[in-house]
Amino acid sequence: MTATPDIASTFADRHIGPRTSDAGHMLEVLGYPTLDKLVDLAVPASIRLDRVLDLPAALSETEVLAQLRRIAGRNRTAVQMIGQGYFDTVTPPVIRRNVLESPAWYTAYTPYQPEISQGRLEALLNFQTMVQDLTALDIANASLLDEASAVAEAVLLMRRSGKNKGRTVIDADALPQTVAVVRGRAEALGFDVEVADLSAGLPDGDINGVVLQQPGASGALRNHAAVIGAAKERGALVTVAADLLSLTLITAPGEQGADIAVGSAQRFGVPLFFGGPHAAYMAVRKGLERMLPGRLVGVSKDADGAPAYRLALQTREQHIRREKATSNICTAQALLAIVASMYAVYHGPEGLRAIARTTHRHAVALAAALEGSEATVVHDAFFDTLLVRVPGRAAEFADRAEAAGYNLRRVDADHLGISCDETTTPEHVAAVAAVFGGTATESAGERLPADLHRTSAFMTHPVFSLHRSETAMLRYLRRLSDRDLALDRTMIPLGSCTMKLNATVEMESISWPEFASIHPFAPESQTEGWRELITDLEERLAEITGYARVSLQPNAGSQGELAGLLAIRGYHRSRGDENRTICLIPSSAHGTNAASAVLAGMKVVVVGTASNGNIDHDDLLAKIEQHAGNLSAIMITYPSTHGVFEEDVRWVCEKVHEAGGQVYIDGANLNALVGLAQPGEFGGDVSHLNLHKTFCIPHGGGGPGVGPVAVAAHLAPFLPGDANRDIATDGGSDASGGTPVSGSMYGSAGVLPISWAYIALMGSEGLTSATAHALLAANYVAARLTEYFPVLYTGVQGLVAHECILDLRPLTAATGVTAEDVAKRLIDYGFHAPTLSFPVAGTLMVEPTESEDLAELDRFIDAMIAIRGEIDRVAAGDFTIEESPLRQAPHTARVLVADEWTQTYPRELAAYPLRSLHHDKYFPPVRRIDGAHGDRNLVCSCPPIEAFED
Amino acid sequence: MTATPDIASTFADRHIGPRTSDAGHMLEVLGYPTLDKLVDLAVPASIRLDRVLDLPAALSETEVLAQLRRIAGRNRTAVQMIGQGYFDTVTPPVIRRNVLESPAWYTAYTPYQPEISQGRLEALLNFQTMVQDLTALDIANASLLDEASAVAEAVLLMRRSGKNKGRTVIDADALPQTVAVVRGRAEALGFDVEVADLSAGLPDGDINGVVLQQPGASGALRNHAAVIGAAKERGALVTVAADLLSLTLITAPGEQGADIAVGSAQRFGVPLFFGGPHAAYMAVRKGLERMLPGRLVGVSKDADGAPAYRLALQTREQHIRREKATSNICTAQALLAIVASMYAVYHGPEGLRAIARTTHRHAVALAAALEGSEATVVHDAFFDTLLVRVPGRAAEFADRAEAAGYNLRRVDADHLGISCDETTTPEHVAAVAAVFGGTATESAGERLPADLHRTSAFMTHPVFSLHRSETAMLRYLRRLSDRDLALDRTMIPLGSCTMKLNATVEMESISWPEFASIHPFAPESQTEGWRELITDLEERLAEITGYARVSLQPNAGSQGELAGLLAIRGYHRSRGDENRTICLIPSSAHGTNAASAVLAGMKVVVVGTASNGNIDHDDLLAKIEQHAGNLSAIMITYPSTHGVFEEDVRWVCEKVHEAGGQVYIDGANLNALVGLAQPGEFGGDVSHLNLHKTFCIPHGGGGPGVGPVAVAAHLAPFLPGDANRDIATDGGSDASGGTPVSGSMYGSAGVLPISWAYIALMGSEGLTSATAHALLAANYVAARLTEYFPVLYTGVQGLVAHECILDLRPLTAATGVTAEDVAKRLIDYGFHAPTLSFPVAGTLMVEPTESEDLAELDRFIDAMIAIRGEIDRVAAGDFTIEESPLRQAPHTARVLVADEWTQTYPRELAAYPLRSLHHDKYFPPVRRIDGAHGDRNLVCSCPPIEAFED
Repeated sequence: MTATPDIASTFADRHIGPRTSDAGHMLEVLGYPTLDKLVDLAVPASIRLDRVLDLPAALSETEVLAQLRRIAGRNRTAVQMIGQGYFDTVTPPVIRRNVLESPAWYTAYTPYQPEISQGRLEALLNFQTMVQDLTALDIANASLLDEASAVAEAVLLMRRSGKNKGRTVIDADALPQTVAVVRGRAEALGFDVEVADLSAGLPDGDINGVVLQQPGASGALRNHAAVIGAAKERGALVTVAADLLSLTLITAPGEQGADIAVGSAQRFGVPLFFGGPHAAYMAVRKGLERMLPGRLVGVSKDADGAPAYRLALQTREQHIRREKATSNICTAQALLAIVASMYAVYHGPEGLRAIARTTHRHAVALAAALEGSEATVVHDAFFDTLLVRVPGRAAEFADRAEAAGYNLRRVDADHLGISCDETTTPEHVAAVAAVFGGTATESAGERLPADLHRTSAFMTHPVFSLHRSETAMLRYLRRLSDRDLALDRTMIPLGSCTMKLNATVEMESISWPEFASIHPFAPESQTEGWRELITDLEERLAEITGYARVSLQPNAGSQGELAGLLAIRGYHRSRGDENRTICLIPSSAHGTNAASAVLAGMKVVVVGTASNGNIDHDDLLAKIEQHAGNLSAIMITYPSTHGVFEEDVRWVCEKVHEAGGQVYIDGANLNALVGLAQPGEFGGDVSHLNLHKTFCIPHGGGGPGVGPVAVAAHLAPFLPGDANRDIATDGGSDASGGTPVSGSMYGSAGVLPISWAYIALMGSEGLTSATAHALLAANYVAARLTEYFPVLYTGVQGLVAHECILDLRPLTAATGVTAEDVAKRLIDYGFHAPTLSFPVAGTLMVEPTESEDLAELDRFIDAMIAIRGEIDRVAAGDFTIEESPLRQAPHTARVLVADEWTQTYPRELAAYPLRSLHHDKYFPPVRRIDGAHGDRNLVCSCPPIEAFED
Repeated sequence: MTATPDIASTFADRHIGPRTSDAGHMLEVLGYPTLDKLVDLAVPASIRLDRVLDLPAALSETEVLAQLRRIAGRNRTAVQMIGQGYFDTVTPPVIRRNVLESPAWYTAYTPYQPEISQGRLEALLNFQTMVQDLTALDIANASLLDEASAVAEAVLLMRRSGKNKGRTVIDADALPQTVAVVRGRAEALGFDVEVADLSAGLPDGDINGVVLQQPGASGALRNHAAVIGAAKERGALVTVAADLLSLTLITAPGEQGADIAVGSAQRFGVPLFFGGPHAAYMAVRKGLERMLPGRLVGVSKDADGAPAYRLALQTREQHIRREKATSNICTAQALLAIVASMYAVYHGPEGLRAIARTTHRHAVALAAALEGSEATVVHDAFFDTLLVRVPGRAAEFADRAEAAGYNLRRVDADHLGISCDETTTPEHVAAVAAVFGGTATESAGERLPADLHRTSAFMTHPVFSLHRSETAMLRYLRRLSDRDLALDRTMIPLGSCTMKLNATVEMESISWPEFASIHPFAPESQTEGWRELITDLEERLAEITGYARVSLQPNAGSQGELAGLLAIRGYHRSRGDENRTICLIPSSAHGTNAASAVLAGMKVVVVGTASNGNIDHDDLLAKIEQHAGNLSAIMITYPSTHGVFEEDVRWVCEKVHEAGGQVYIDGANLNALVGLAQPGEFGGDVSHLNLHKTFCIPHGGGGPGVGPVAVAAHLAPFLPGDANRDIATDGGSDASGGTPVSGSMYGSAGVLPISWAYIALMGSEGLTSATAHALLAANYVAARLTEYFPVLYTGVQGLVAHECILDLRPLTAATGVTAEDVAKRLIDYGFHAPTLSFPVAGTLMVEPTESEDLAELDRFIDAMIAIRGEIDRVAAGDFTIEESPLRQAPHTARVLVADEWTQTYPRELAAYPLRSLHHDKYFPPVRRIDGAHGDRNLVCSCPPIEAFED
């Protein structure tokens, strides 16, 4: 193992925090002579990889940028008029630079610690308010993964909520990729989906829910009021997949009686990104809010009664409800939702309407220009998209347009789709018309049906009108981000979330137009660079994990789990094992595991934990025996969620295999394995990885993520297929692959250059060294802190893996000081808290990662030791727990500076418990937030400005 | 005049702060029906432009980016091995994104208010420390404009300080552009410069100072100890222009006895930028510090005795000393000095040495490869640059190399220069060797003279070793920038400095490789894009100002002034008027005016101010008469530095013209004129502009700036020539133009896309509207505040121009509260102070600019009114001035949260005097700084970390 030298000569030296001398000190504390020795003891010999990874030699930052420029140069930008749910848009530069390209925003974690997340929570609340207003529904969540999976979530919501348990009906004019994704989900869960032309009315029979698209995939604008009314009369729920921009001009789904609206916020300033990441949205009418999937920001109050934001109704979510959760969704698209919300803040309601009007005018102009041309415009009423009929000549005209620099949608042999957007110009209209022999003329008028004109106001909250100049916008962005703590200010020692460096060089290329401006359905000749990068990344991830094949389609860990489990399901069924539906899950597993298993049509059986934290062997054997012929899979995490390398993992895998089951190894903790062991080698049939954990995609305040699914050869045929190709080209056949889980083939393609760059920069040696340093850091923290907070679980050598659980329960029992008190008090010390109460309630799980240097690790240790001292003072009776700085934490500047100080401890102890804080002090904007109050009094849109007055 | 609509549809709508409705409100407060009416009354009819500017139609942000991409595409990048003071380098991405591309750094103002500038002051102190250590001299300043002008400053310093008043001798191996710039300065000031081969010893005769170059322009490394010793024996001072990177390996100038070292910090991570902006440095031995030109950061203490940084020895500077200043330098290269300092922090001493060694090894390898080739390496000892002899075939080989993608330096018909740098690779070495028929082999060894090996340590301060991982670096950058207040958090209402929006879209292109990676002496075929942009910008600026020609060479306002005055000088002399050396300057002028006049060889005669603040007519006529035949020029600022449109400006210009003088109109206040009046039309013969004021180049914490000089046709032949061409190609003739003021033809070319984009985005209408809104904002602030703080001067209509002077003197007399107290108290309110005590001592000058919206203007007004209330409480005896929150301001969080509160006013009054501060509060990192203490106890390098312990 090469330690990091004091002279940083490779990128790995910059990625890894501790210098060689620091690592030496840390090893000394631990009592090991070398890093190799520590690794040899920590990682069971039985799984150790006996070779170096076969990866290209590490590149320098300059070389990586040159490579990425070469690859980007193989993509070709064009005027993107394909539409089909993806539209070109202008990301205002002030938002691009100060959100998408700002570490203060992109390195932030999911706002589970709301007191240090008020900035991004406000931004997400703006997103929810914007969606609620535009859809005219009561409650919107803080984003979903993409439109296709959002529709699938809506369908599942209707199935959970609807009284009528009949089939799901989807309008024939829905986006084809949406239909494919919904069908895949329905097939796994065993319910029927019918695609029907709803312009002819509802089909007969029991219907649980109806899905409409507005405007339709064909561009047609139809008044859905009648069909919605009919559906509701028949006891069905109704979802409308609606284009947000069009809703500025036409009647909103909520105004037509829809129960649910879903769709994509991509065209609100989020680049095409070759298909993602984009924020999807979901809004529901009142009464369905407790059924909502995904994260929901709500307004509550802090300990001083001031308004404060936090995630609401978390009890719906998988980390609490496990297999009973509303969804398996965990990571969402926070960063992109923030971009979309800021686009709305920047343009305001009038601005959005003006953009919509201009877009519509271009479409109208194009329709007019096509009159008398070789193409016939099919629909009278449309917003931005024309379906044109060119019998037998669709390919010919599409080729011609492509040659002129315009991508059109190839619908079928006779039809093309042409979509206008914010970037369309009169020159584009003229050029496209010319392809068909049409001539652009001055045209006026509109083609919006008179009975669909929107008359209601939207986005009336002042936030959507206060920041119209760039200066005001810049300051608003800065102000919000300053309220939050992200990786650019502090270590975020979150167990199981691997908050490591998101290096600038890894981030830079994602906003290059040659990557960012490519439509997911652009012709292959224009996407050679993207496909080179994706294939290369898939191959490198396969080498790292020891699997045969990797799919990058899943755009979050949860989707990776689903895709992996669906692959297992497909495999069993291909062998006639349709009864293999039991999924064993250890009690310590991430809740997402259980929720995903349910979505894959499996039944969850929990396997117990032994006293040492490992899987209980006896219980495992008993459960295997009990479910013998029905065993589908076991889902384990390795190293375990207890932060331990279980010695017996090969044995566990063998036992499951012997019983005919497949082994799913959750890759959440892969950062402890890279270069040292391969899940695909020591027993896994499938794993999902989290590129936003192990491979440096930043957490973005809660997304985007990428959750690749990696499989052994026998599962490769069941990897996710292309939702667009399946339906559009092959007429819905599944022959080309397994069930798609995302609307575009490569999911969150746009952020893949980050992970590609990371692997290219590190090389085999660097990656392995990173893993070793992650183990070193975790063991150093564990060793330094265990006398203050006992480390709950260790491996046979007394070592932890890459994280450690600090047990607060004895102290809680003795003093009343809870793990939450410690988490909140850490804010006063300038830290983001570790993971709270997972996987064991009453504990804190710390994962320092390889990127934190010794100084930062020591700063954290010092803070924890000082907090232990405060706990001891509670024990000693210096102050009661209620009156202690622990329970009163965090302290705002406002309360600290108040003329009246009512606490029993001094101000300086509250604010500056360590002298090092004198120089760099973070003041949270709110005090501890009352979550229960917010759930009891649910408010999920921007509160009036008056609420913030004293 | 088009007001800004509520729907932002053009870029101007984003640039200009107030919406139409806001402007309406502001006009109502002022009592004018329309903006046009206000403008008509404010701007004298006698100078109003009667047409719209002839500029291309305004482009959208998308269109501007497309245009810039097209222009950038006309440049060609190549492997830059020209050297000659400019080397390719790797800007670490973490520094590029988080300094060069971060508004928190680039929108900051010069740190004249040190309490809100501790972050950038620390960064600049790091720069000084790095330079001091590398040069082994005692005190370094915080950057100069470029190497050539830095050498000129050193020569002037030697002339001021040296006892021996003989000639200046420059080594023949100095950079040619340096020699040209020094000669130009010497010619204006009338002293002799001799270029001599000092390797043969010092020439005879009186010598004031000697300039050596290390390594020489030819790449030769020589031990200068003997010649330095000889010079000192003969009473001469010695300056060494030294390459900082080479100093990590070779003996430092200070160790060889040099008095002064100068040079460029460009290759420390600052892109080539087609010649600039780059930070030059100057270091001097103890005893010369009070002679230093430019800004100097020093350590002092705050009111609580804590260490605090601020600008030291400001009494040397032009804004205090005027014509007696050490230099006319005002704007420096702060942002680039910060980049260079952070490059040093990132790499540390070992890292820099490793880069230097690798660079040297490549040069050695190339020399070895050229053995037996068609080229002969001239020098045995070198660092990074080889001079190769190819008799009669230099052009042929250079062409060949160019065709292969390598730019070499064309020295003369027989010689080429080849420079290695941080980016050189073995492939480059092999390819260049191949051009000459050489073959690269494995080579070892070094070519540094044994008697020049550096043995002393450098950069031993912990700051140069603590931030080696990217995570640590990122957090250090964030931590420093968080200490400062820049435009991204608050209005910076600085009179005469025009702190307007620096829009992201304007900033984005400067880091594109096609702009950033071009060597200033690259072949013209590779710089077509740059030249298109520069020519276009020059033409647009000529149209805006009403002049015939513009030169963009001056890289700061001070250099623009010098260039303009040298043009006037050249013009007079070309007509035989060698005695015209008197320069009239009103007493209210910027100090830089006087300092520049001296440098142009003129004598300053001050013209008095009448009681209304305007130029005193009688005194003007008297001075003209008194100096009749000797009158060279008058330098006036318009609108005046009193913020007033003087009605008589035409008359003033005419009187000077009648006496044979030229009229220099300082463009500092051009933001009040664009689109409304042209200085070239109403009487000016020459103006300099400040692109970093009127045309959106950000202030960067004190630079870069661009100070174009614009002239009437008769002065065009005297615009700055090309320092490189003059000497290198034309053998030193001045025939190709006037005196160069910068080492590269286009000065700070790298930031010109910012101003180009601004003009292209705004168009004539937008620019004019911006001016009108700047007048509106200033008059609104003046009208709202005059009853609290009387506005000192107004025009005949009772209106101010684009700024206003608030007179504190009566309040000071009555209460003791000074303008400085108000400036410091504004920090507690979250504001950067207005300009303090310029042009009138005891006043504050406020320039709000067009970019501040009504909300921010009102926030400022509210703060000022609240402060007036505090002053009234002093008057009322509620607290003494010494014990008032005004004198105690600013208040740090530390003092506010202290357990003991000793002030007579409450904590909340100190911290939250307005309720709006509850939500967004800036805490300065230090209390009021004792500047005098720092000047008495001068410390200009990083203090030990222990100094910050409590």
